[in-house]
Amino acid sequence: MHATLAALANPARRIERVVATRNAASRLPEGIDPQILEPDAIDGMLPPGAVHQGLAARAHPLEPVALEAACAPPDGRSVLILDGVTDPQNVGAAFRSAAAFGARAIILQDRKSPPLTGVLAKAAAGAVETIPHVRVVNLGRAIETLRSLGYITVALEGEAELGLGDALADKRSAAIVVGAEGKGLRPGVAEACEKRARIPIAPAMESLNVSVAAAIALYEAKRSR
Amino acid sequence: MHATLAALANPARRIERVVATRNAASRLPEGIDPQILEPDAIDGMLPPGAVHQGLAARAHPLEPVALEAACAPPDGRSVLILDGVTDPQNVGAAFRSAAAFGARAIILQDRKSPPLTGVLAKAAAGAVETIPHVRVVNLGRAIETLRSLGYITVALEGEAELGLGDALADKRSAAIVVGAEGKGLRPGVAEACEKRARIPIAPAMESLNVSVAAAIALYEAKRSR
Repeated sequence: MHATLAALANPARRIERVVATRNAASRLPEGIDPQILEPDAIDGMLPPGAVHQGLAARAHPLEPVALEAACAPPDGRSVLILDGVTDPQNVGAAFRSAAAFGARAIILQDRKSPPLTGVLAKAAAGAVETIPHVRVVNLGRAIETLRSLGYITVALEGEAELGLGDALADKRSAAIVVGAEGKGLRPGVAEACEKRARIPIAPAMESLNVSVAAAIALYEAKRSR
Repeated sequence: MHATLAALANPARRIERVVATRNAASRLPEGIDPQILEPDAIDGMLPPGAVHQGLAARAHPLEPVALEAACAPPDGRSVLILDGVTDPQNVGAAFRSAAAFGARAIILQDRKSPPLTGVLAKAAAGAVETIPHVRVVNLGRAIETLRSLGYITVALEGEAELGLGDALADKRSAAIVVGAEGKGLRPGVAEACEKRARIPIAPAMESLNVSVAAAIALYEAKRSR
């Protein structure tokens, strides 16, 4: 319901079709005119196991935005960079946290990142409509561009010595890179960053869930300003 | 792999059976002697769709701990209380964050909370073995007990006016209550708390994912001490 209403409210979305159960249709805002279907028929239009609340839309994907158009000049807001995060649930949750903590954009590696659809859009709870996403061929080069634009670029790594709060202390706009669980950041991506920093966690735990790490990084970046 | 090794390392666990693929068995720490099975056979022992890395164990559930045994006297660490959070993935993620941020215990409502098994234990990445869990019949009464023990009790609510950082400013040990997404806290639970506070988020977003909210609350409680 949430993700679909947000897509329908986004003027940049090209919508092909909207379907709803009679019950869900009666609770929609004015101006949305869905085709009424039985719940089973909607089940059949969605991936197996997808849970819905009686509303679905088929929409064209949102266009990515160019790096400099999305991020220049720095204005205090953070940029989140995801390196090798392929789980759609985690990427969607990162969009949701980015919107909640006032981030400016999310940067993804073009070929390895999931499309902003289905499970991802649902986990984002509408935030894929509002947070610009940038898809780049080479994350290291994107990080260099952000550095030259004036961002402080921070690689989040469990084994770093610097705490994230200290890394962000100089109040420049932050571009924070979060890697996949287990694998972490690729060396070239971490090396492109000005700083490496960690979210302080208990030694007994190896890592945080990647969507939790992204959320805390964005929360800390906002809090420390 | 992670959740199973943590269970096998926990002396409080009664283990019935350990199975592994030949490949996974070759990478296990010494002293674990699994029955070797083909990957398909392990698939068949797990719930449909469960992903594994070639290792599984059948274990007796961990015993909950009594409230005062787990939480008295306050020692600076936080206690996390989950009200109506039924999604095992979210509860498991809360355990993982509790361990990462040095929380002392998690309190759940006995009848409405999922058992600490399967998907939940996997999302917890071993933390169900290390974070004591308390199951109570009445959360409001548990919160009153924590107040009388000297905890500052804080209901996390999106519509509260006080920021979480301010609510935790007096440095008492914190007991923080997080409710289910959508429903939020039940009135009786919120009213039992000394303070109501919010994680500051952008007005355009309705809420945070519950596991993200729990993680940020525990991070902030640790940071602000």
